[in-house]
Amino acid sequence: MTEQIRDVVDRYVKLVGSGPTEAIVELYAPEATVEDPVGAPVRHGHDAIREFYDILAPLDRETELRTDSVRVAGNEVAFQFTIITRVGGQRFTMSPIDYMEFDDSGKIVRMRAFWSQDDMAIEPE
Amino acid sequence: MTEQIRDVVDRYVKLVGSGPTEAIVELYAPEATVEDPVGAPVRHGHDAIREFYDILAPLDRETELRTDSVRVAGNEVAFQFTIITRVGGQRFTMSPIDYMEFDDSGKIVRMRAFWSQDDMAIEPE
Repeated sequence: MTEQIRDVVDRYVKLVGSGPTEAIVELYAPEATVEDPVGAPVRHGHDAIREFYDILAPLDRETELRTDSVRVAGNEVAFQFTIITRVGGQRFTMSPIDYMEFDDSGKIVRMRAFWSQDDMAIEPE
Repeated sequence: MTEQIRDVVDRYVKLVGSGPTEAIVELYAPEATVEDPVGAPVRHGHDAIREFYDILAPLDRETELRTDSVRVAGNEVAFQFTIITRVGGQRFTMSPIDYMEFDDSGKIVRMRAFWSQDDMAIEPE
């Protein structure tokens, strides 16, 4: 299970940086929940999750997993990754810590992303 | 609240590296729970929490917070830190991701530590 979870984390971070949205949605179980950031309304199910990741789709973005941050414990994982978005001549850099819980088939059933606006760096390109 | 949580995280990591145990216990609310690592039996209340941290007390150890990992969201936080323990001529290095939830007074009410034996590096001194 540990290797399977690591593999999903790898794919998740790559797909958040590249899409397509549908491939991200497929990493989730149909009844999964997403809370991103923690404290925001919880999105429930594939449709709500698709809507969330579709926001990223048109953005010029890249992601990188901090490979020395991936910590699997049973069917849960926490890890940190960086997402850089470029909009209007500015570069927005964020490094959330994501938490995920998995079902026995290796699908994500719960995701919670820890970050706040305070953690975002904004620089001119 | 964000600054208060960051301050507790700083103090927590320093105290895990230096003790005394009682100062760690005081960061927790009386009815707090500790699950370290995630999947282990949950320890409940100051006495069980004291017993847990007392295991560290006699060890030659040091800790360092990854300051660029501290992610506060509302009254919750996730962060990564490194703990190095020296036993019998060997150095054990671990970098868990810890999750904490806080009450309104800034005491930890829940802690879950994400790591597994796979994440431990063992080297000769």
